Amino acid sequence: MEKQIRLDVSNMFAEKIGSEHGLNREQVDDFQKKADQIHRYIREAKKEGKMGFMELPFQDHHKIEEIENFAAQRKSEIENFVVLGIGGSALGSIALQTALKDPYHNIRTDVRNDTPRLFVPDNVDPVRFGSLLDELDLEKTLFNVISKSGGTAETMSQFLITRQAVIEELGKESLKDHFVATTSQESGYLIEIAKQEGIPTFPIPGNVGGRFSVLSPVGLLFGAFAGLDIYELLSGARFMDELCSTADLWNNPAYLNALLEYLAYQEGKKMSVMFPYAHRLKDVADWYRQLWAESLGKEVDRDGKEVNVGPTPIKALGATDQHSQVQLYMEGPYDKIINFLEVKNFERKLKIPDAYQEIEGVSYLGGHSLNHLLQTEKKATELALTKRQRVNKTIILPEIQEHTLGQLFYLLELQTAFIGELFNINVFNQPGVELGKSYAYGILGRKGYQEMKRKYDKSPDHSEEFIV
Amino acid sequence: MEKQIRLDVSNMFAEKIGSEHGLNREQVDDFQKKADQIHRYIREAKKEGKMGFMELPFQDHHKIEEIENFAAQRKSEIENFVVLGIGGSALGSIALQTALKDPYHNIRTDVRNDTPRLFVPDNVDPVRFGSLLDELDLEKTLFNVISKSGGTAETMSQFLITRQAVIEELGKESLKDHFVATTSQESGYLIEIAKQEGIPTFPIPGNVGGRFSVLSPVGLLFGAFAGLDIYELLSGARFMDELCSTADLWNNPAYLNALLEYLAYQEGKKMSVMFPYAHRLKDVADWYRQLWAESLGKEVDRDGKEVNVGPTPIKALGATDQHSQVQLYMEGPYDKIINFLEVKNFERKLKIPDAYQEIEGVSYLGGHSLNHLLQTEKKATELALTKRQRVNKTIILPEIQEHTLGQLFYLLELQTAFIGELFNINVFNQPGVELGKSYAYGILGRKGYQEMKRKYDKSPDHSEEFIV
Repeated sequence: MEKQIRLDVSNMFAEKIGSEHGLNREQVDDFQKKADQIHRYIREAKKEGKMGFMELPFQDHHKIEEIENFAAQRKSEIENFVVLGIGGSALGSIALQTALKDPYHNIRTDVRNDTPRLFVPDNVDPVRFGSLLDELDLEKTLFNVISKSGGTAETMSQFLITRQAVIEELGKESLKDHFVATTSQESGYLIEIAKQEGIPTFPIPGNVGGRFSVLSPVGLLFGAFAGLDIYELLSGARFMDELCSTADLWNNPAYLNALLEYLAYQEGKKMSVMFPYAHRLKDVADWYRQLWAESLGKEVDRDGKEVNVGPTPIKALGATDQHSQVQLYMEGPYDKIINFLEVKNFERKLKIPDAYQEIEGVSYLGGHSLNHLLQTEKKATELALTKRQRVNKTIILPEIQEHTLGQLFYLLELQTAFIGELFNINVFNQPGVELGKSYAYGILGRKGYQEMKRKYDKSPDHSEEFIV
Repeated sequence: MEKQIRLDVSNMFAEKIGSEHGLNREQVDDFQKKADQIHRYIREAKKEGKMGFMELPFQDHHKIEEIENFAAQRKSEIENFVVLGIGGSALGSIALQTALKDPYHNIRTDVRNDTPRLFVPDNVDPVRFGSLLDELDLEKTLFNVISKSGGTAETMSQFLITRQAVIEELGKESLKDHFVATTSQESGYLIEIAKQEGIPTFPIPGNVGGRFSVLSPVGLLFGAFAGLDIYELLSGARFMDELCSTADLWNNPAYLNALLEYLAYQEGKKMSVMFPYAHRLKDVADWYRQLWAESLGKEVDRDGKEVNVGPTPIKALGATDQHSQVQLYMEGPYDKIINFLEVKNFERKLKIPDAYQEIEGVSYLGGHSLNHLLQTEKKATELALTKRQRVNKTIILPEIQEHTLGQLFYLLELQTAFIGELFNINVFNQPGVELGKSYAYGILGRKGYQEMKRKYDKSPDHSEEFIV
């Protein structure tokens, strides 16, 4: 079977979408020179070690084996594998689980085999985190604490709570058996703590940020415990790297996709919808939402100019959102670009049985499969959007497997790096979250943030006149 | 304890947000006359039976008792309660479950007591739906098929598949014991089928559309099986109805909230983010996403003028999305209005233990609670957004219980009706989804849709030149 994921961009162009909202081929051609420049820049930056995510598909096999071996050793001892982490430390694992594990993995002992139950609580909601703690048999639980710096308040709070629970139930000497830390090996609080407690560690490379880390140990350790073929994930990413080795816009899916998103943004399509027609891809859309928003939402460009730029990524899910969002996509403002994800072969087929031949509003369904229904709805929605001059494109996945997922992750990461150059911004930083963090540190009484506390306190209380 | 949910709109105004992006009090006052008109219109329309959702909080107690009694009778016989439905037939139940049941309800026998496991598969993904079928012991399962017309392709496909499974395993005469239908009693395919099979039914009132149906039997039957206090849900809605009985903009939270959303939209804030800081409210945000998008995304206004109007609702989740979307909200274009949902009292408290006194980047967390951390992060994010002149407001919930949820649902529904009048559109239809449906009917071979099939076939295949 064909294993390459493909990008169909027909419905971005005037031929299909009409000239008012469609692009022209020349608009792409006009960017070829710029694309050549960016291509050279990316290659150069990669050589200089500034494109860490591009190195991950080629990481040392011994390191992957270490991950595999660790998981193989520990898996038989545990019932629960729990990721403590938030944002980029959680979204990749969640995406992997939803895409590649049974949708009811945690409640189905019959399909789980020797794989532990998988939990990525992600957030710090006390009710949800407390309920999870109540459910876990700590003796049979391994926690993977993930934070590059070890300074992530949510993650370290999760760690402090679970650490205390393990100490109380199993004793301090058990920490090393129930925790593993995925973190920077060079510096940070978590590596320091891990050494102190004798907790085993896996590295996050210094040049890989959270949102680009799914193919680093951050996602791979989870994959190994989940019983996924992590070699195939990386192989898929290498395959896509090869497909994207040309500077030719019309033949490089990452570059072409980036440019079309950029052109659409310039023409007022400020929202980019990721719209998979497969439940399994819904959290890939969520992972992408972080990648796109945090990389591209920037106040200043590389020259220090205030630009306040950034398309807003939106996740949707077919066919569900036909009954929720599609009315708006069809009739609302022309302010969106829709990205379908289409799956050719699902791993199982469900037939819709014939019945009620006399009721024509129901009987036509019989004999089709649920697969065909879902795929038909995608085609019908695509065609209707196109008729209504709503720009859209489709990423076609032959199937949902490790190899296709690896391709998809890498494609989306590389296109993020490319569009960042078109916007002339730094895609790898996130200065905008610092102010909020500092206020939080101040309120919580962290040393060195007293000034922020004072500023917070000075901010007058909400006046009753504005509360209804 | 205070039970009223409150709306804090301070950060919409120039006093807090600066004059470039903040509103002035006079802008609200200028709409008072218009608000009086709309208020009269809504009251009038309600009398004429055009505002079905406003009647639901006051529905006959006998009908609620019927729902309660049915659930009480059947609950002891079943292990699984499964909703077959999509969009408005699913989102309310999902929101109720996430908000009010244990987050790990389906895997925790210790907290489930006599409540069945709850499943709302919603979508028609063959892998997910197939996995659910494999997991269910049909003899101990009750399916609630929800479709007002009985013509919803996804729902009826789910029904045909589960119906066949029940017939094969338990015999045709068992259908009436394993299905219940929530549907229009006057007309439609599902009521016809239910009569034919002897399946019990609950009504969806003719003047209540899917996205406004959570307080009808659509949501209430689910609530009763989930062990929720559905009387309190309705009582909360009535409480909010009373709070919104004035036409005075400054004292009617639904009207004021609607107007502020409208003014923000007019000033270029085309996206409206629903940002709860509580995991339990995340699917209320998803429910709202349908309510807002499908009601307000419209091509023509009441006068038939082409307007292509509609704010785009976006769901986010705190604190998680601080590590995903907040960078964009802080630094990207000034094209969003942020709606926080804040919870005063969580039903449980988790303390963060003291540890690592020598590591100042971690030690400051000790002694706080996870609750305080989450609430602090909300305050810090709110203040940082405000300093960056990003308009935002907060709905404050004293706690997450049936009564507050009932208030919240009703508040958001009423504000939707009100803003629809400001936009001068029909909020209760969804003409934009018909074209896609017709193509799908055509492709699937439904009688009367041959022409759509021909149109679909004529649409030329994707040309290879646009596929990468």
